[in-house]
Amino acid sequence: MDWRNEIVAAADRIAGHVRRTPVTVLEFAGLAMPVEVKLEHIQHTGTFKTRGAFNTLLSTDVPEAGVVAASGGNHGAAVAFAAARLGLRAHIFVPELAGSSKIALIERSGADLTVVPGAYADALNAALEHEARTGAMQIHAYDAPGTVAGQGTCMAEWEDQGLEADTVLIAVGGGGLIGGALGWLQGRRKVVAVEPRTSSALNAALAAGEPVDVEVSGIAANALGARRIGGICLDLARRHGAHSVLVEDDDIARAQALLWREARQLVEPAGATALAALMSGAYVPAEGERVAVLICGANPAPDPV
Amino acid sequence: MDWRNEIVAAADRIAGHVRRTPVTVLEFAGLAMPVEVKLEHIQHTGTFKTRGAFNTLLSTDVPEAGVVAASGGNHGAAVAFAAARLGLRAHIFVPELAGSSKIALIERSGADLTVVPGAYADALNAALEHEARTGAMQIHAYDAPGTVAGQGTCMAEWEDQGLEADTVLIAVGGGGLIGGALGWLQGRRKVVAVEPRTSSALNAALAAGEPVDVEVSGIAANALGARRIGGICLDLARRHGAHSVLVEDDDIARAQALLWREARQLVEPAGATALAALMSGAYVPAEGERVAVLICGANPAPDPV
Repeated sequence: MDWRNEIVAAADRIAGHVRRTPVTVLEFAGLAMPVEVKLEHIQHTGTFKTRGAFNTLLSTDVPEAGVVAASGGNHGAAVAFAAARLGLRAHIFVPELAGSSKIALIERSGADLTVVPGAYADALNAALEHEARTGAMQIHAYDAPGTVAGQGTCMAEWEDQGLEADTVLIAVGGGGLIGGALGWLQGRRKVVAVEPRTSSALNAALAAGEPVDVEVSGIAANALGARRIGGICLDLARRHGAHSVLVEDDDIARAQALLWREARQLVEPAGATALAALMSGAYVPAEGERVAVLICGANPAPDPV
Repeated sequence: MDWRNEIVAAADRIAGHVRRTPVTVLEFAGLAMPVEVKLEHIQHTGTFKTRGAFNTLLSTDVPEAGVVAASGGNHGAAVAFAAARLGLRAHIFVPELAGSSKIALIERSGADLTVVPGAYADALNAALEHEARTGAMQIHAYDAPGTVAGQGTCMAEWEDQGLEADTVLIAVGGGGLIGGALGWLQGRRKVVAVEPRTSSALNAALAAGEPVDVEVSGIAANALGARRIGGICLDLARRHGAHSVLVEDDDIARAQALLWREARQLVEPAGATALAALMSGAYVPAEGERVAVLICGANPAPDPV
């Protein structure tokens, strides 16, 4: 697949539907150097996932029965939002651990919502049943070309905004966001994949040489807790030599608190995971290496206001 | 005073000490049109006041006894931060209503802090006593040329970032921020001064033709609750024909909630006051009029994380 072309086409497709999110430079105690950041959590529904949702819906003939998605919350909120804007029906299945702010986003969109007792796998089963029963189109959260190309527009946009960094740190769940970044960058900048030690599907797959199932838990589980990395992401990560690091939940919590304290940005744990790698020393830049951090999600529960 | 020159000089002086805060465009339900916003609450200590504090400290010979400030919280946090960065002593006096997040900012700076029972006037009296006793230099929160010129760098920066709007809405307390904006713009764009009905010192002064004392209360009182508008601001507002509107506390609370819900920006009531004027209809743009809102403060209490 020619990812550059796919991402250029996706960017054209979703223009006007998604926000061009701002970029800035942050420096504060606990960081050895200024860091370029993209505030992608200012995106509609609080995450980059709106990009992939619009790209998929705008490049597919959606059946009368609409679309269906299973999600830890953020993907579902994005699909629900995009479907509503495009006048399409959507049914979203989330597990209880999605949390109140993500559930509220879905409810406000007007989508049908089913909160499934249990974990993500139970929500996925319910979504598959719904698909079989109604003919609705399933939209995968990360391992589909339309999703990955949509998320890739985030990195393309950042370069258009003047990104200078040698190295970009990106949090990884199922691999849609980093997959899109790798597909766009094609090795032109170093990409560091940051996962919680409690949800490390990419790290495990790189070690095993193939996707393997991992246990998922921890404070970022409802956003980054994929049991198995997407095949698209793994292929791109191996081809372009993505660097993989793990961070502890405590470091994520500290980075989350620091983003509020030093820059008044309130994000969810997943949104602070990439920054945690810099603060904790899980990734130590070389002297003179310029680094950037993609801030990707801001749906902590409960809502603060 | 040649405000353009003063502000250019201030911008040179404070460069490297303050953040160049990001700008973006927001559109969401409840707004009739897309709105340019400057996220000035990402500034150090969560408000624009850091600009004025650095400008004052860097353009003055500070005595051995250091500096002293009385503040509802935000000015004090900014002076404490700037003094710490410059290796100067600072003593900040705040009333209890400053709230926990602003007090925490001051404490973390290492400044001496006195929380004064009562209201702002009591904190000011304590600060004046401290000045008389120690010889420390008093830094006024808004009605001093160095403060106004420093705050004016915010609008100069926004224009340098490509501001397109015909009209800029700015919240007003004592008038430092809007004074700086008026001094920079010199009538080149329309400026709308937005005050809570519960704290409307500029509106009352424009009606009376001179500064008058007003009662202050309401949800933005610890940030916008000046009893009397600054003379510098009033002079600039009259000279350049600033448009003055009032908003209700309920509208401010709704705008604050909307900024979180639709753009994941958690601000204090003062930070949402200018936006409230658009949402409530207190200011109704003409057809085709392009508007911008300055988001100026993000220290709600308690801290959310």
